[in-house]
Amino acid sequence: MRQTRAAVPTWREAPAEAESAGHRFLLRSGMIRQLAAGVFTYLPLGFRVLTKISAVIREELNHAGAQEMLMPALQPAELWQASGRYEVYGSELIRLKDRHNREFALGPTHEEVITSLIKQEISSYRQLPVAFYQIQTKFRDERRPRSGLLRGREFLMMDAYSFHDGYPSLDTFYEIMHDAYERIFTRCGLEYRGVEADAGAIGGQGGSHEFIVLSDIGEDTIAVCGSCGYAANLEKAEVGLCQNRGEEDWSHEDKKPASSFIKTILYNADGQAAAVLVRGDREVNEIKVKQALGVQELRLAEEQEITAWTGTASGFSGPVGLAIPLLVDQEVACMSEGIAGANEEDIHLRGVRPGRDFSLERTGDYRNAVDGDACPCCNGVLTLQRGIEIGHIFKLGDKYTSAFNAEVLQADGQILTPVMGCYGIGVSRLMAAVAEQCHDEYGLIWPEEIAPFRVHIIPVTSKDALQMQTAEKLYQDLSGLGVEVLLDDRDERPGVKFNDADLFGIPWRIVVGKGVTEGRVEVRRRGTEQADSLPVDEAVRLVAFLTEPTAK
Amino acid sequence: MRQTRAAVPTWREAPAEAESAGHRFLLRSGMIRQLAAGVFTYLPLGFRVLTKISAVIREELNHAGAQEMLMPALQPAELWQASGRYEVYGSELIRLKDRHNREFALGPTHEEVITSLIKQEISSYRQLPVAFYQIQTKFRDERRPRSGLLRGREFLMMDAYSFHDGYPSLDTFYEIMHDAYERIFTRCGLEYRGVEADAGAIGGQGGSHEFIVLSDIGEDTIAVCGSCGYAANLEKAEVGLCQNRGEEDWSHEDKKPASSFIKTILYNADGQAAAVLVRGDREVNEIKVKQALGVQELRLAEEQEITAWTGTASGFSGPVGLAIPLLVDQEVACMSEGIAGANEEDIHLRGVRPGRDFSLERTGDYRNAVDGDACPCCNGVLTLQRGIEIGHIFKLGDKYTSAFNAEVLQADGQILTPVMGCYGIGVSRLMAAVAEQCHDEYGLIWPEEIAPFRVHIIPVTSKDALQMQTAEKLYQDLSGLGVEVLLDDRDERPGVKFNDADLFGIPWRIVVGKGVTEGRVEVRRRGTEQADSLPVDEAVRLVAFLTEPTAK
Repeated sequence: MRQTRAAVPTWREAPAEAESAGHRFLLRSGMIRQLAAGVFTYLPLGFRVLTKISAVIREELNHAGAQEMLMPALQPAELWQASGRYEVYGSELIRLKDRHNREFALGPTHEEVITSLIKQEISSYRQLPVAFYQIQTKFRDERRPRSGLLRGREFLMMDAYSFHDGYPSLDTFYEIMHDAYERIFTRCGLEYRGVEADAGAIGGQGGSHEFIVLSDIGEDTIAVCGSCGYAANLEKAEVGLCQNRGEEDWSHEDKKPASSFIKTILYNADGQAAAVLVRGDREVNEIKVKQALGVQELRLAEEQEITAWTGTASGFSGPVGLAIPLLVDQEVACMSEGIAGANEEDIHLRGVRPGRDFSLERTGDYRNAVDGDACPCCNGVLTLQRGIEIGHIFKLGDKYTSAFNAEVLQADGQILTPVMGCYGIGVSRLMAAVAEQCHDEYGLIWPEEIAPFRVHIIPVTSKDALQMQTAEKLYQDLSGLGVEVLLDDRDERPGVKFNDADLFGIPWRIVVGKGVTEGRVEVRRRGTEQADSLPVDEAVRLVAFLTEPTAK
Repeated sequence: MRQTRAAVPTWREAPAEAESAGHRFLLRSGMIRQLAAGVFTYLPLGFRVLTKISAVIREELNHAGAQEMLMPALQPAELWQASGRYEVYGSELIRLKDRHNREFALGPTHEEVITSLIKQEISSYRQLPVAFYQIQTKFRDERRPRSGLLRGREFLMMDAYSFHDGYPSLDTFYEIMHDAYERIFTRCGLEYRGVEADAGAIGGQGGSHEFIVLSDIGEDTIAVCGSCGYAANLEKAEVGLCQNRGEEDWSHEDKKPASSFIKTILYNADGQAAAVLVRGDREVNEIKVKQALGVQELRLAEEQEITAWTGTASGFSGPVGLAIPLLVDQEVACMSEGIAGANEEDIHLRGVRPGRDFSLERTGDYRNAVDGDACPCCNGVLTLQRGIEIGHIFKLGDKYTSAFNAEVLQADGQILTPVMGCYGIGVSRLMAAVAEQCHDEYGLIWPEEIAPFRVHIIPVTSKDALQMQTAEKLYQDLSGLGVEVLLDDRDERPGVKFNDADLFGIPWRIVVGKGVTEGRVEVRRRGTEQADSLPVDEAVRLVAFLTEPTAK
């Protein structure tokens, strides 16, 4: 393609609100433009990247045995009421009324639509398993859209759904999808981690993994063991057994560190009171608490509940003499003694001894992991890392199939409610994650398989007829061999061309400069210092060879 | 692909509300399913058709020099207010508010978005011409969604936009796009007509063509000359000069045919009164009247206006003595005499003579063409035909570039407002139009280039191991040659398989039946009676040859 047709002018500077390097380069290189907060236009170069990512996803999911289809964005509110999510989803769900005043949601996900379809179309166990996917535009009214494509309000997503006659089949397909995801992200050139995750609001039983691209600007935190490879997101990450830290120095009475305190946090758990005890410098992990208690809903106790349960205001709760269930984090259980609230205003108890002064009956792992914690698998050391979630797979069980009465007949005439898996990849978010990981100070460095073009041909001096002719010949020859080439056919100064080329980040570059009088051009790889001077025909052969699609 | 994975069960009957044959077959064959009125899911087979149509469009538009991109569905209301269409578009425009109460429209089209982008990105005449397109989901809240995909509320559309430094460039590109459209529709196997059209509400100056698929269920009417090939939609179709029909037989005073009457229709044209006179059996063409008067808005006069202008109620207006401008259709001017209202309740005037009793100063072509009218080009005979609009191209001029102040600098330093073209194809509608044209009484008959698969392999007897093995071998061999094959691997009776195959409408069919004991299979073409019995390997070679993509 000729650059005069394909590209819009690049920007010297990104607008101030573009806070991450990847977002700045996507804007500066003219890949994307913002239309409204969290709403973007993909310009031709950016659209090509999006298309290539989609192609990789399609190949791997077709290979996994999923069928592509397309569901609508406009979803009748009744479907969301049937699943109970119309209220739960809150103001992230974009709602509208049609001219007949019927309520619709703009789909942020499609569990309801696919399950109601399956109910209609599938009636026998012999039709299972089935797996469908789509690459489709989703809508979520994020409270604070940020980092460009990373958290948008309109975004491209792949969502897949599978239905099975039981967990053995779901478990097998889940593994197949897990492997497909690994191949997809590897082919997209990402450094990522597949981590154990909590199924969260989508409501699953039985298993969930997230795929996290390591990046300091990410909103997710994962805990990774440097020894055994254990990795989980913070919500899920278990903490290994604590070592008793021995007696502490209590000589300085005044300034005790936060680690000397026992925090008592009160919760309303499905209507019942519960207290969770963690060390003063730790945070309660509510997912763990919820699972330990086996409850549906867990929320911080309100002021009047705290008063009713402890006899005093919030901020002074303590475990001693408290007549509600105490969930004691294992780290607290290991303390020789600590400082705790006394359930009396402005009074703290010192020298509180776990086991003596309150029960350790329900000791367990109830807090978020921190840097340096023991790995739950190998007792190695956990490190916390920031990352961007680009994919998520869930075993949903029968949550949706039950809600929609999607039943099938078994061989023995019995009725069966299929179990379901769902699988998502943020396609536009993946593009943004690549931009965050793959750049240098000058611009983007696209991985081969998803680059907008494989080769960028740059004649140095636009006024030099031989350079322009040679560039044109290279363009024709490589295009003829099926290589995707961008030709910088603009009448611009060399500096402008090279700066733009660095911004675009196309993997291979052929520079047609002075050497052309001796029949030579320069082949460079973006992001490396290496440059080879080669005869024109040899350059064509080399680049055509280097850009062959890699065997899969 | 294996049918057990790709297809959902077919339906014996379509629901009663599916009123056209194409829509019934798309439903029965499991290509699409309705989620809400005018909102559809594309199941795997249907999605493949949609993908193939999109691929044909992409090839031809890339060849025409347009660049693919992707714009958002969520469009800030301010953009629509800037163009003045926020009100004009009425309740077809789906509106919503985000969580911060900002108003958005769900894009039914993208003139506003692309023009505001061009204003931002293009500053010099040297960057023109540019042409962009997208294949993207559109939203229009139709009052009465009908005929399945033909008039949906959420639908897939290709929309392209070009910007030029003047009409010569726009005219050239318009022709290129016209040719691309012809190739697209031909490759999709459609019988269609490119006709002159009115630019209508989208607001163009200078030219517009529609592409109409001939079909009795179409909502559009076109006038076609059997002699010279002139074709135009009814809004635009000119009527050739009328021949004076001579004296009429006035002997039977009682029952005069409608053609003896002169209808006087009153309009409010930009606030001014105007009367249009057509024969009693004709319909006023308001587009022609609007153009003749050179007004922006034309609407039927209201009751009080009629009373004010004629002195009597509606239904009794007549041209004699009427003191407002009279637009006399040429056919009325040719009448020797007629019956007209007298501007007095319950009174009609007989023997009214055009020219004597009212002025013929503003005689012209003000009515819709009818079957048998003279062709405006060759005086041949016009025939009216029903059809489905699947594409539309417009020269928009500077309507949007002016509204958005999208200006560029010329070589001489002067400021220029670019002119614009826009070009649309209803992708999902095209799929529906093909289904209307390409079927028989048993099911669909997909044209080669857009069929979901090229070949359908059907073993007759599922219990016959040799038949199943041979079918599997054919499937492997043809797939290995890159042919897209669907294998009916279901355990079903032969009748069920053949009925489903007829519904699906895949062009080539290989039936593996009893002949397989002699190493022979049957090759059939859907929609023909022809069937050839061939040795297995020869069948592979023949079908691989027949399904080679045709040279373009």
